Order: sequence, then C-alpha cells, then structure tokens
Amino acid sequence: MSIASTPEPPYTAVVFTSLRTEGDQGYARMAERMDLLAQEQPGYLGIEAARDAGGLGITVSYWVDDAAAAAWKQVAEHLVAQERGRDVWYADYRVRVATVTRAYGPTRS
Amino acid sequence: MSIASTPEPPYTAVVFTSLRTEGDQGYARMAERMDLLAQEQPGYLGIEAARDAGGLGITVSYWVDDAAAAAWKQVAEHLVAQERGRDVWYADYRVRVATVTRAYGPTRS
Repeated sequence: MSIASTPEPPYTAVVFTSLRTEGDQGYARMAERMDLLAQEQPGYLGIEAARDAGGLGITVSYWVDDAAAAAWKQVAEHLVAQERGRDVWYADYRVRVATVTRAYGPTRS
Repeated sequence: MSIASTPEPPYTAVVFTSLRTEGDQGYARMAERMDLLAQEQPGYLGIEAARDAGGLGITVSYWVDDAAAAAWKQVAEHLVAQERGRDVWYADYRVRVATVTRAYGPTRS
C-alpha cells in the first residue's frame, strides 16, 4: 500500500475509520478481495489504508465523484462484506464522505 | 487514539498520508506535541491517526471549516514541524483538504 496518485481536485474521498474486534475471522481475505473489487469499479481513483498496532484503522478510497462512491457502497459483494463488518469484524466504525477541494505534496525550495 | 466524535456535517477534514523515513529522529516526540497543540486551536473537532507496520501513515484532522484548518497550517510551531517533516521525517506525503458532506456509523437492525 502506498500514497494514491489522484488527479487535480475536486474528487470524492471516503474516509473509513474502524476499530477491529479480536482475531482475524476471515477479515484479511475479505479486505484483500474488497481492494481488488473496488479497483474494478467505475470512477475509482485509488485507495490508501493503514492500521495501527492498537487496532485503529483508516482506509481512504478516492472516487471521481459522490455518485461513483455511492455506487461502490451498493455493489452486492460489498454489501455482504459491510454486513459481516458490522456483525463480526468491527467493534466500531465511522464513514465520512467528503469532497476534496485542495491537495498538495512536499514542495522543497 | 480512537474514532473522533465529530458533529453533523458539514465540516472540514484534512487527510495527511505519509511515508516515514527510517529511524525516529525526534518524530514521536513531535507527533505527540502536534496532537496536543492541534487540540488547542480554534475550530478543532478531533483527530484520528494510524500507521502501518509498512511505514504508511494516515492522519485525519477535523475542523469546523476550511478557515480553521488553514489557520492550523500557519501556526508557527506547526510550520517548524512541517519543514522538519519535509526535510527529515517523511520520504513522501500528500495533504488533501476536504469538506465532509455525509457521515454515518454502524446501524444494526
């Protein structure tokens, strides 16, 4: 996983912050599958993810617009993963859908 | 670090994705100090951060609006940290400023 190459704003970011339950319970396999499935969706721009030793994880997926992000939420296999996430994998989570208005990287003089 | 308690949207999210260089070099101490300093700023709503074993980190700070986020970027001690970040701590990074339009958590039926 590395820093996503995204185009000039505006575009949509979906920030998914989560706390995992104990044990894998099929999580790693699902996460890998969802990464691949997301990449196949119309309007996908990229994904970034990090999980702390403490169990807090942040995944940010980038989309051309809100409609593309909303469509990904409704993909059948993703809906199944979301339900299992609520029931088994996540002790808690928060999803925030946002419009990126500015972006920049290092600018060394 | 846990999931931030944020109000109803809209509000501003600053997504900071970074790749660390090797070694601490004063990084942990600075990160802790910046967390505390951010909390003291006007318009601060919360912060979430996770760093992978692989070195990719995502920090999301939340602000009442873009002006509050922009003001935090210009705080003198933070400017010093940003410069040291570019020069020493980060191999690469990307900052994305975004307006959160929707947010939700688990809804178990």
